[in-house]
Amino acid sequence: MSRYAPVNFPDVKLEGKFWHERLETVLTRTIPSQHKKLAEYTILDSLKLPNPPPPLRFPRHANGFTVQVFWDSDVGKWIEAASYALAHRRDADIEAKIEAIVDDFEKAQAPDGYLNCWYLGHEPDKRWTNLRDNHEMYNAGHMLEGAIAYFRVTGRRRWLDVMERYLDHIYARFGTGPGQKRGYDGHEEIELALIKLYYLTGEKKHLDFATYLINERGNQHPHYFDIEREEREGKEGKALNQRYVFGNYEYSQSHVPVREQDKVVGHAVRAMYLYTAMADLAAELNDPALKKACETLWDDVMETKMYVTAGLGPSAQNEGFTHDFDLPNQTAYAETCASVALIFWAQRMLHLDLDGKYADILELAMFNGALSGLSRDGEHYFYANPLESDGTPTRWDWHTCPCCTMNVSRLVASVGGYFVSTAKDGVAFHLYGGIATEVKIAGTKVGLREVSTYPWNGDIKIHVDPESPAQFDVKLRIPGWSSGAKVSVNGEAVDVSKAISGYLTINRTWAKGDVVSLDLPMPPVRLYANPGVLMDVGRVALKRGPLVYCLEEVDNPGGRVQRLKLPREATLKAETRADLFDGVVTLKADALAIDESDWNTLYRTTPPSQGTATLTALPYYLWANRGQGSMVVWVPEAN
Amino acid sequence: MSRYAPVNFPDVKLEGKFWHERLETVLTRTIPSQHKKLAEYTILDSLKLPNPPPPLRFPRHANGFTVQVFWDSDVGKWIEAASYALAHRRDADIEAKIEAIVDDFEKAQAPDGYLNCWYLGHEPDKRWTNLRDNHEMYNAGHMLEGAIAYFRVTGRRRWLDVMERYLDHIYARFGTGPGQKRGYDGHEEIELALIKLYYLTGEKKHLDFATYLINERGNQHPHYFDIEREEREGKEGKALNQRYVFGNYEYSQSHVPVREQDKVVGHAVRAMYLYTAMADLAAELNDPALKKACETLWDDVMETKMYVTAGLGPSAQNEGFTHDFDLPNQTAYAETCASVALIFWAQRMLHLDLDGKYADILELAMFNGALSGLSRDGEHYFYANPLESDGTPTRWDWHTCPCCTMNVSRLVASVGGYFVSTAKDGVAFHLYGGIATEVKIAGTKVGLREVSTYPWNGDIKIHVDPESPAQFDVKLRIPGWSSGAKVSVNGEAVDVSKAISGYLTINRTWAKGDVVSLDLPMPPVRLYANPGVLMDVGRVALKRGPLVYCLEEVDNPGGRVQRLKLPREATLKAETRADLFDGVVTLKADALAIDESDWNTLYRTTPPSQGTATLTALPYYLWANRGQGSMVVWVPEAN
Repeated sequence: MSRYAPVNFPDVKLEGKFWHERLETVLTRTIPSQHKKLAEYTILDSLKLPNPPPPLRFPRHANGFTVQVFWDSDVGKWIEAASYALAHRRDADIEAKIEAIVDDFEKAQAPDGYLNCWYLGHEPDKRWTNLRDNHEMYNAGHMLEGAIAYFRVTGRRRWLDVMERYLDHIYARFGTGPGQKRGYDGHEEIELALIKLYYLTGEKKHLDFATYLINERGNQHPHYFDIEREEREGKEGKALNQRYVFGNYEYSQSHVPVREQDKVVGHAVRAMYLYTAMADLAAELNDPALKKACETLWDDVMETKMYVTAGLGPSAQNEGFTHDFDLPNQTAYAETCASVALIFWAQRMLHLDLDGKYADILELAMFNGALSGLSRDGEHYFYANPLESDGTPTRWDWHTCPCCTMNVSRLVASVGGYFVSTAKDGVAFHLYGGIATEVKIAGTKVGLREVSTYPWNGDIKIHVDPESPAQFDVKLRIPGWSSGAKVSVNGEAVDVSKAISGYLTINRTWAKGDVVSLDLPMPPVRLYANPGVLMDVGRVALKRGPLVYCLEEVDNPGGRVQRLKLPREATLKAETRADLFDGVVTLKADALAIDESDWNTLYRTTPPSQGTATLTALPYYLWANRGQGSMVVWVPEAN
Repeated sequence: MSRYAPVNFPDVKLEGKFWHERLETVLTRTIPSQHKKLAEYTILDSLKLPNPPPPLRFPRHANGFTVQVFWDSDVGKWIEAASYALAHRRDADIEAKIEAIVDDFEKAQAPDGYLNCWYLGHEPDKRWTNLRDNHEMYNAGHMLEGAIAYFRVTGRRRWLDVMERYLDHIYARFGTGPGQKRGYDGHEEIELALIKLYYLTGEKKHLDFATYLINERGNQHPHYFDIEREEREGKEGKALNQRYVFGNYEYSQSHVPVREQDKVVGHAVRAMYLYTAMADLAAELNDPALKKACETLWDDVMETKMYVTAGLGPSAQNEGFTHDFDLPNQTAYAETCASVALIFWAQRMLHLDLDGKYADILELAMFNGALSGLSRDGEHYFYANPLESDGTPTRWDWHTCPCCTMNVSRLVASVGGYFVSTAKDGVAFHLYGGIATEVKIAGTKVGLREVSTYPWNGDIKIHVDPESPAQFDVKLRIPGWSSGAKVSVNGEAVDVSKAISGYLTINRTWAKGDVVSLDLPMPPVRLYANPGVLMDVGRVALKRGPLVYCLEEVDNPGGRVQRLKLPREATLKAETRADLFDGVVTLKADALAIDESDWNTLYRTTPPSQGTATLTALPYYLWANRGQGSMVVWVPEAN
């Protein structure tokens, strides 16, 4: 099969209402407001060296760590998101803001190329002494992604030059050569950024260093983080491993070489960034062991560790994974960044093998676990995305650790890049929702317009308009969640049962005016969790199409939504609600409701009284946009 | 009403099988094995000053803290437990072991009376610099309780003399007088120990210092812990409040003066020890504000914060309380010490007002949350007592922080003290289970023998044998959990509806041979939790008499017990099982069971298949004595 590659997001116009609204919100509200916050929180000031750095805003932890060590990455990620926005429409004000930051970075860069504003400002003599905790390469990775994005849209390479000088500094210092340190970062990220740079420049040294980092991870005895610690703290440091809050190698996926890893462990975002880079390298190096490891890890997370929303990492303690089937709802961490990074990984896997199982998860994470991190107004966020709330959590307008804010804005600003891929002899549609693009297939320019109100409705029309008639594949993803899909070309039915690995291939000679119809019925469904997920036994999640639903108190007044039970036999009705969020589909059902009013003790022998109620469910990604209140995804089922 | 006071435990013979077995186990296995562990873990070596202290076994936390700072308290608590054992039967070997420890403490004591082996051995120049974290007074309190217990049973006052010298040192240093520091301990305990010493010696200075500690708590601006921190760390220390893991005053109940506290907050064991001392002082000082605070706090914990097992403190993070109705099951901390300390508090409240609501909780904690901390073999423990398990938790034979081990042994070794109280004109029975004692009422010696197989059966006979006929009250607790209790005297019915505040008073002229029959029907019941407890909605706890039940995998083979559902209409049958734990009553019911065998995905749209099963429930306190396996207290109810 020929290799598919995504159509770049600037070439994909988002015409459908769903993504158009999210994109506009991010362009007009999120990205400008994020720059304000970077300024307000003195993050931008921290780059203005040699000015003295602003006073510590977030005190150091006992082990000396402060979240401020990754401020550079936040700036890098903002520039990346802002550059993606510029690809939609240039903006002199945003560009001036980016240039000002580039000025600062350029001035801050040390003569030897080093460029980390935390260390330069606060601890210039301690550079490269704590890769385990202090994120120097991680920062470099995000700055590099920003530089690449900015260069791609503007052609301005000043910051990219700065970053390349910094990378040369890093390449000289780290590696397996004589006099080099065999280090790698505790927080993976730079690996995937280096591969992007390799794709941009074709310079093999970037690919080589990414490969070095991937190969070296977990591959040394003694462990690099211990060598480094001993250099830092002396031998005595060893006994005090618990000074390091996350005193295990699994936390950073450095416990064994990556090709031997078969269980998803540790910090969720780190894991996802690592696997993304592994999948990239598996493709680029044609490395079957790396591909196999990716597949094994994919199966592990899908079979035992993913929330129904595509949230990842149940525990706040390590911001990551625990044991199989441990998916608590109220205390779910499910960091926005982790779901965003799962999208990255899924996209890489999808382009290794065009298998709908990857696109299914990409879509699930997009519409649920990732998008839930951004408020309707585009200026409030969730860092953790619980699946149940007693009414306490609220969206915040900034965070001590603002990583998630820019992760969600850079995702939405570039979301068009996940819809369509092309090969030399075909085009593949992964997501639906109303896009238009023009691609070149088999030497022919082909206009493509997918028209739908997806995800609200599964009635999809795809207009295929080659400049001149041409034979090629049109591959349609038939979502794993769908059943009874129907496809026709110019009114003539196509046998959907011929779909392979989630894609239906239509090979024919296409001519201007051809229309493919795809009908994906979207009845509301109940999902049951594997009984290994003890928290969800006796409960159901509600889903329609790619959207997971939840019950919010504001739609179910009369007490906390945890009082509601859904009878097994109750019918779920989809209802279009023009009055809510500019038009959404809610779900409704006749339900039972426990009466909370007649309780005055903590325990009693009389069962709670129970009445009837109408249950209303809203797409999960929209929760917590209308004030505080209880919320539940997994609804108790009366049976 | 005349004031009731407990009959001392050495005067109460435990004849009933239930407590006889637990007591024998503690005397013959727990207490000797605990001494071995104290030796093995170098805790005893740490007292042998001026020998250099053994190497640090548990590294210091980042803030300098190590659990070893409270090793003295563990030794003190062991001596207390061992002394209670001696009250049942003297034992030369145990006494020699205690004497050896007293030798060490006596030698370790500084010329000025100071006696804390951690500081004397490790940081002699840092005494009294960190009352907030380092437990110096807490240790002194437990040592004092040990010294009092040892003196009471042996008449040997060498250790008590040592401790009184230490107290004089403390009294000189702390107080409201000129040149004194207005300190109190971050971990309450010494307060209740000082009141015990006052009861023993009648010396008012001990009561006065306890009163000072209670009055001073949370009563200063700036807060004593901040004054102390500034002295320790300089003004700069203030900014680094988060170095202190539990950087709030609520953690140590020092946020406001104790008489103003109306919400149970912070570390659960600290809270319970504090309230115990407050109730003691309320009685001793006849202080209505203190009594009112105790009652308000009691209501708060009972109405919003207590597990159905009488476990307290849901969170491992602060070992304590969170918000109302936050009672997660699998992650319940519910430290054994907290339930033991709740028993202490309940006993004080009960003797402030002879109200069965206090005895109900005393009994509930005794049979469930406290007793669950000790294994059947008497040599394994739970520190945390979760109400649900995926099969991971196991009992341990020792703990980094062994506080719970000796708390449960000292409780069981003195359990007889909770059964009966006397006043000048009456006797009150609080607990049942087979005891014999002799008391003096209205100037008459009265033999009392309560015969029953409680808690397995509610058929109770009480033989009241005064030396000569005498008129007095016999008060019988009619448990709050019971319904349809019947009472007769010499076969003649007594109207149980006349019971007031949980006690039925029978006033008559008693004569040798009189027999009171108390019949407490014990049908198995279902308990429902207030819907505010989100975790328990749709679930039931099973209870019979004072015992809370649980499902264990070993009794419900075929998969994890979380797969079981109990239909609302299913009958619960009590079944005597002679084969289990030397005879217990289990509960059985026809139930539904989810089939786990046909799952190969994490989520699916098909409901789990469901079959039928027989559900078997075991008293909660016996869980985790037969290998690892899942467990659940709150069973999903099919309805």
